[in-house]
Amino acid sequence: MSSPDITIAIDCMGGDHGPAVTVPATAAYLRSDADAAAVLVGRPDALEPLVAPLLSEFGDRLRVQVASEVVEMDEPPANALRGKKDSSMRVAVNLVKAGNAQAAVSAGNTGALMAISRFVLKMLPGIDRPAIATILPTSRGRCYVLDLGANVDCTAEHLMQFGIMGAMLVAAVEHVDRPSVGLLNIGEEEIKGNEVVKDAAELLRTSGLNFYGNVEGTDIYRGTTDVVVCDGFVGNVALKTSEGLATMLAGFLREEFSRSWLSKLSALVAMPALKRFKRRVDHRNYNGASLLGLRGVVVKSHGSADAFAFERAIWRAAEEARNSLIERISERMASRENSG
Amino acid sequence: MSSPDITIAIDCMGGDHGPAVTVPATAAYLRSDADAAAVLVGRPDALEPLVAPLLSEFGDRLRVQVASEVVEMDEPPANALRGKKDSSMRVAVNLVKAGNAQAAVSAGNTGALMAISRFVLKMLPGIDRPAIATILPTSRGRCYVLDLGANVDCTAEHLMQFGIMGAMLVAAVEHVDRPSVGLLNIGEEEIKGNEVVKDAAELLRTSGLNFYGNVEGTDIYRGTTDVVVCDGFVGNVALKTSEGLATMLAGFLREEFSRSWLSKLSALVAMPALKRFKRRVDHRNYNGASLLGLRGVVVKSHGSADAFAFERAIWRAAEEARNSLIERISERMASRENSG
Repeated sequence: MSSPDITIAIDCMGGDHGPAVTVPATAAYLRSDADAAAVLVGRPDALEPLVAPLLSEFGDRLRVQVASEVVEMDEPPANALRGKKDSSMRVAVNLVKAGNAQAAVSAGNTGALMAISRFVLKMLPGIDRPAIATILPTSRGRCYVLDLGANVDCTAEHLMQFGIMGAMLVAAVEHVDRPSVGLLNIGEEEIKGNEVVKDAAELLRTSGLNFYGNVEGTDIYRGTTDVVVCDGFVGNVALKTSEGLATMLAGFLREEFSRSWLSKLSALVAMPALKRFKRRVDHRNYNGASLLGLRGVVVKSHGSADAFAFERAIWRAAEEARNSLIERISERMASRENSG
Repeated sequence: MSSPDITIAIDCMGGDHGPAVTVPATAAYLRSDADAAAVLVGRPDALEPLVAPLLSEFGDRLRVQVASEVVEMDEPPANALRGKKDSSMRVAVNLVKAGNAQAAVSAGNTGALMAISRFVLKMLPGIDRPAIATILPTSRGRCYVLDLGANVDCTAEHLMQFGIMGAMLVAAVEHVDRPSVGLLNIGEEEIKGNEVVKDAAELLRTSGLNFYGNVEGTDIYRGTTDVVVCDGFVGNVALKTSEGLATMLAGFLREEFSRSWLSKLSALVAMPALKRFKRRVDHRNYNGASLLGLRGVVVKSHGSADAFAFERAIWRAAEEARNSLIERISERMASRENSG
């Protein structure tokens, strides 16, 4: 049996469901990725009963790393960073720092994960701020959108760096040679966007990236470009608005198919098509947001993820680690420094 | 026969379809609103054949006002404003200014309509910038979102004024006593929004409005508040992203129901429910964005509106005029000046 090519550190305590989701998800992942290993990080009392039955199945590929503390979902990031040095989140990120794991995955508090990752792993040279990138489904495939949530009041230079990181992410995990990058803007002619966005377009145009130009909100789901760049405020609003709309539409569809016994009957007949539709837009397929700009791979799972969704986040972390995401970003930044 | 209580000026030449949509839509509107009159504004050669058969039906309630020029959909607003003093758009807005109409409706170029309306009608005292408000469907009813498209780089004071205008709009047309107002923000604890949004929250808190506090993107379609305030950049992105997502989902649904003869058959059975769903989320029901902050009622229809959708925009204009929207906003602003 060959030794694993990568090891993923799993913060087992994070998320709404903790080990009940993270442990089975890790087991499912290890079953389908025979070359990988995982370290489950968390409190022994919480992990023991779930992990014990798995140890014989995975042997060396699965081990437990004890961490005595847990970062709460609503805990201020500064608290988590300064006050909980032995949290499962921190210990998982430490494993990446020490080279004992090639990526960390957590469904915990986003702000804390970002603060801890930034403190422990440090930033890549030339990157001013880390960003969060997520995948969205499109009519043509998938689109990577960043930033989502952390960076407000961005400068043009920040947006340009997001463009580089997003392009390198798509190059790494989608194996696209020169991913197209769009800059999110608005369409009104006279007043096309604010000054920062205008300046960012200039920087992106001369960046050497495959810059498509400005895109609008409609272009995200149209799949016009592989990457869409925006500041964290705008990205967060776009993502949350989408979540709200999708939830409303699903609710309306459900209501219309349960209005009478006749519509319930028709729903049964329509079930195969409705199920295919549901599977296709299932957000769990896209779970796992990448924390970019750090000297290590960190993936944030949605807090409410189930085992299927959390496994998707582990896969994303593995893909990023195996395809040298960090090296790609840092080489790109270095070549920029040299040519600048 | 009593004389009409309001007259609506219709820019018949605007939009992708011009008189072919605007004239039948106006006729349909007049048929269902017996107290209203309309002035059709446009080039006589384009209007004549469509209007002639209607004149006997509506008598005094329908008349034509000649305008020799047309603002193009992609024309720079400054051109339209300075170069085309006899455009159908300008003449329609002039009718409001002169008191010969109580509202104007146009499906033309948004930037030009805003520039012309602002120049001809002037701003209400105390309002720094006009805003564009639209209605979106929610799980509970409807939500009014502003600004959408015109105002980027807003100050906190601008956002506060949008809150006042939005609340007065809902009070006028939805007959809600103290509409709730939410400020669009993001949820990450540490970095909740940018400085402008933080300051706007302070202003709204002491504004005397029924201020709910911060809301997130998900709250728009959840219907958490009657009004959602944001700057034009963020609002435009939220709206266009929603359009893109809805289009993608509709496409996926169509594809899944036409994948095989069996799914096509099931679509036939499911048709009543699917049709009810479609009707419920039909964006044509929500057509008509209000230009707020002006000394007159102006409603912008979507450029691609069909007659059904354009008629909805005329109804919105009529509702705003009949329920004293302008007076409500200006009284509210005046009481603010006095108490400040």
